[in-house]
Amino acid sequence: MGGDFAPKEVIDGAYLAVKELDVKIILVGPLNILENEIKRFKDWPANSIVLHEATEVVTMGESPSNSFRKKKNSSIRVGLNLVKEKKADAFVSAGNTGAVMTASLLVLGKVKNIDRPAITAILPTKQSRAVVLDMGSTVDCKASHLAEFAQMGNIFSKHILQIDHPKVGLLNIGEEEEKGNSVTQEAYSIIKGLDLNFVGNIEGKDIFEGKADVVVCDGFVGNSLLKFGEGVVDLISTFFKSEAKKSLLSLVGLCVLSPAFKRFRKRFDYAEYGGAPLLGVNGVSVVAHGKSHAVAIKNAIYQAKLAVENKVIERIEGVR
Amino acid sequence: MGGDFAPKEVIDGAYLAVKELDVKIILVGPLNILENEIKRFKDWPANSIVLHEATEVVTMGESPSNSFRKKKNSSIRVGLNLVKEKKADAFVSAGNTGAVMTASLLVLGKVKNIDRPAITAILPTKQSRAVVLDMGSTVDCKASHLAEFAQMGNIFSKHILQIDHPKVGLLNIGEEEEKGNSVTQEAYSIIKGLDLNFVGNIEGKDIFEGKADVVVCDGFVGNSLLKFGEGVVDLISTFFKSEAKKSLLSLVGLCVLSPAFKRFRKRFDYAEYGGAPLLGVNGVSVVAHGKSHAVAIKNAIYQAKLAVENKVIERIEGVR
Repeated sequence: MGGDFAPKEVIDGAYLAVKELDVKIILVGPLNILENEIKRFKDWPANSIVLHEATEVVTMGESPSNSFRKKKNSSIRVGLNLVKEKKADAFVSAGNTGAVMTASLLVLGKVKNIDRPAITAILPTKQSRAVVLDMGSTVDCKASHLAEFAQMGNIFSKHILQIDHPKVGLLNIGEEEEKGNSVTQEAYSIIKGLDLNFVGNIEGKDIFEGKADVVVCDGFVGNSLLKFGEGVVDLISTFFKSEAKKSLLSLVGLCVLSPAFKRFRKRFDYAEYGGAPLLGVNGVSVVAHGKSHAVAIKNAIYQAKLAVENKVIERIEGVR
Repeated sequence: MGGDFAPKEVIDGAYLAVKELDVKIILVGPLNILENEIKRFKDWPANSIVLHEATEVVTMGESPSNSFRKKKNSSIRVGLNLVKEKKADAFVSAGNTGAVMTASLLVLGKVKNIDRPAITAILPTKQSRAVVLDMGSTVDCKASHLAEFAQMGNIFSKHILQIDHPKVGLLNIGEEEEKGNSVTQEAYSIIKGLDLNFVGNIEGKDIFEGKADVVVCDGFVGNSLLKFGEGVVDLISTFFKSEAKKSLLSLVGLCVLSPAFKRFRKRFDYAEYGGAPLLGVNGVSVVAHGKSHAVAIKNAIYQAKLAVENKVIERIEGVR
């Protein structure tokens, strides 16, 4: 029921997933709505997609903690309960990110040995892509939390993105070991002692140079960066549009490049890669972007499938 | 002597400044180099520009603390000493930013009542521009430091950028008062009690929407944002170039828009607005970008002049 184009696109995504991915889906939501939606399909795969009742829906603007307390039968809570009760292997939602994160943590609990969960983003680099975490799940990080993120990001990069020996970097404001604030300085010394391919400090602009496959930062910093980056992309778009009004030539140039710019925005939109997994909770929980269409939903399901098959939770449990 | 195009562009900037701004300049550096440089000018304004010997030069890559300790006769230290001894009203340099910041703090000291200095950046918004501080001078900020930045940014915006009742915002990861980490939560409650036009929390992307004239953040966060933003702009440029290789039409589009993109980069380059003043030190000290050409140097001198004439230091001293 979550996301700007739910339930239509979510159901279409589930349909694509069972056709292409060898998965079974439990669709969670108000049965009357779901049953009405699936009438659109002539070949509805009733053996591979089952419906599961959840009478309430969390809206996109709702407060995460309020929605959790007040809506015990929301599709988010009911879906996560299925994971907790081992009736489902993973949970995927394009709904209210904060509500999914909060409910995931409260329903599934944390993985043993992990103190704080982290939400990941997959950002494009000039050559490939990089995992950045945490993107806003844990603020006020201690150095030990950043070290956990390094280990969880390493597992994600290796087993979901299939990168051998991922390069792990620590986001900082300078490259030298002694740079940064007290938390990053301490985190540096912890992380360099871990069994990781640690490449040291990474500055914000170096993320795009591909200097690391995994970039570790406090959730306050990561979330600020992501929103600032969106703002920069948006500002460029506004700037070009105002330029296009000044001359016909610029207008033509803009029209020609407009599809490329759209592709860029899409690349920059981390959810396009299949959603942002919440790492450190005791179960696979993937948040797809609110604007997800069917293919993005299918990609999020694929990511969840990879996490299950590659035992990401068990690997995180074993990190120390 | 500082900057990628020193001493030529710095001297040209000083020349422009005395022609246009009604200022007197003391050029600080090795006399033999300076004397040789000014031979280029047929109408050298010897009454308005005097030369002052400094035998050493801090290079761009040098460690700030090392350079301060080892080079007592660097042009940076000698120039700042002139301010301290009231032989100059302000100091401007396009040199090693860290070295200028460190030396400014150690030579000039802090303004009474100010606990931590802040370096400002002036970012473009869709309508105008915004002052963001701190950009890396003070990491590990306490809430009280952010409150100081709010007050210093307010004075800068009002008296240097001439904005009436500047809107002051606190960079955060959500708009509601209770959002953020422990430092921003506490800072929110302090700042809202100050005599400022406080507009509350501002998210990264909202900086460009012009929701605030002054945006306050920890130096670690500000510096990370700025570098990340540069990375995004750079990534877009790379992306378009690779698109242009794919089709002739895209190449034409790129060529048409290329000057506009260059103008954008320039707008995004905060130093174009005349450098980044270091606020909170007991004297006017302005850091121009390392890549400053003559006009940017002149703009930095203009900013320093405004700071002196509008008694920015005295106003900061009086904030509480």
